[in-house]
Amino acid sequence: MLSKSQIKLIKSLSQKKFRNKHQLFVVEGIKGIQEFLNSDFELVSLYSANSEFDVSDKFLEIIDEKELNKISFLKTPQKALAVFKILENICPEINDLTLILDGVRDPGNLGTIIRLCDWFGIENLICSLDTVDCYNPKVVQASMGSLARVKIFYKALEHFLNENPEIPVFGALLDGKNIYSEKLPQKAFIVMGNEANGISEEIKNLISQKITIPQFGKRRETESLNVATATSIVLSEFRRSSVIEK
Amino acid sequence: MLSKSQIKLIKSLSQKKFRNKHQLFVVEGIKGIQEFLNSDFELVSLYSANSEFDVSDKFLEIIDEKELNKISFLKTPQKALAVFKILENICPEINDLTLILDGVRDPGNLGTIIRLCDWFGIENLICSLDTVDCYNPKVVQASMGSLARVKIFYKALEHFLNENPEIPVFGALLDGKNIYSEKLPQKAFIVMGNEANGISEEIKNLISQKITIPQFGKRRETESLNVATATSIVLSEFRRSSVIEK
Repeated sequence: MLSKSQIKLIKSLSQKKFRNKHQLFVVEGIKGIQEFLNSDFELVSLYSANSEFDVSDKFLEIIDEKELNKISFLKTPQKALAVFKILENICPEINDLTLILDGVRDPGNLGTIIRLCDWFGIENLICSLDTVDCYNPKVVQASMGSLARVKIFYKALEHFLNENPEIPVFGALLDGKNIYSEKLPQKAFIVMGNEANGISEEIKNLISQKITIPQFGKRRETESLNVATATSIVLSEFRRSSVIEK
Repeated sequence: MLSKSQIKLIKSLSQKKFRNKHQLFVVEGIKGIQEFLNSDFELVSLYSANSEFDVSDKFLEIIDEKELNKISFLKTPQKALAVFKILENICPEINDLTLILDGVRDPGNLGTIIRLCDWFGIENLICSLDTVDCYNPKVVQASMGSLARVKIFYKALEHFLNENPEIPVFGALLDGKNIYSEKLPQKAFIVMGNEANGISEEIKNLISQKITIPQFGKRRETESLNVATATSIVLSEFRRSSVIEK
């Protein structure tokens, strides 16, 4: 049986200010929860309406579906909900391909991009301070467990880039060079911009190589690709360069 | 002033059975509507709460925002809503790269894929009969106007593929060959499968070349890429083959 204060706490975690205050966030669904249990994240509480849930954990509390509905952020609640502690990552030395997001606002896009980083072995994702919070429940859901493996850092980008002047900065821009024919190193920053406005002016000035995904077909009306699909193509191109010579 | 029957008709178009009955669908937002006005689609009615809307059209009816809220399918209604006739495309002879979707269910994914087709010059998109309806309001919204340019056909896939035996059928499967090193022709079918179950068994049997997007990084937990991001990488790889030799 959930107490009123438990319900209030969990529901408050849909908002960034309460996630920051309590340093907690919510993961829903057995599969996603298991991925966080297999990671460095620390479990705080675990609620399940499914007694067959095979995590034999002292934290597990069996609740009924009605109670689960009360605390879930989903329209169709999954069988379990867990609260984890936010992990404070220490920004590592950059030795590999690193993705930088400049003002990505849509939680679904950020979640998809985290999943892409996981697929393409991008260990560190740097986000501008105005990028959507990675512990937003919609981001957690869309990342499908990949958030448990990709390290995410929120940084003042201009300062961060100036601190790492030796690493080339690639930026996806409409007036860039054809990504298919450019040499793409495996130690580099890749900057992807905001959904509506692209990369901000201050960051554009710090880009050393502009790249673009060529458009095919007759018509030029398609304005741009969605940031998550553009990121998937850019990451794929960088990684293919590590296995297939240009 | 909207009549009750107008409101009822428009609201009914959120459902596939009424779209089929009336052969009508809804487009929201000035930009999207303008793309359909510049296409072969036939306008039936146009409502706007914005008198500055620059389509000088006999169909234009100025309504207030309260009325627009009544007919909009969006949480945050845009400035205009239009009703267009569904276009019955006649399936053309297949002469170019053609994308086939086998059971894609999520409207956001289909909308994103339509936008990708537009970017990569894929003129015809073939969907299995159980793929989400392309006139679903969420698909129309996610396609960002590209639905006005890409021709979409719903087909019994097995029959359709058997009718075109001379065209190679590429399928994106986890046990396929590395897409980065395969020769990829510009006249081919590319099959992408359902979000949860991939390509169906019947269609798998008709695939002549299995391809896969390699996974990078140490961990193998990431199950698969989202179908829209996987499609973006596959289409990019095929099109880059037309400009860069392997």
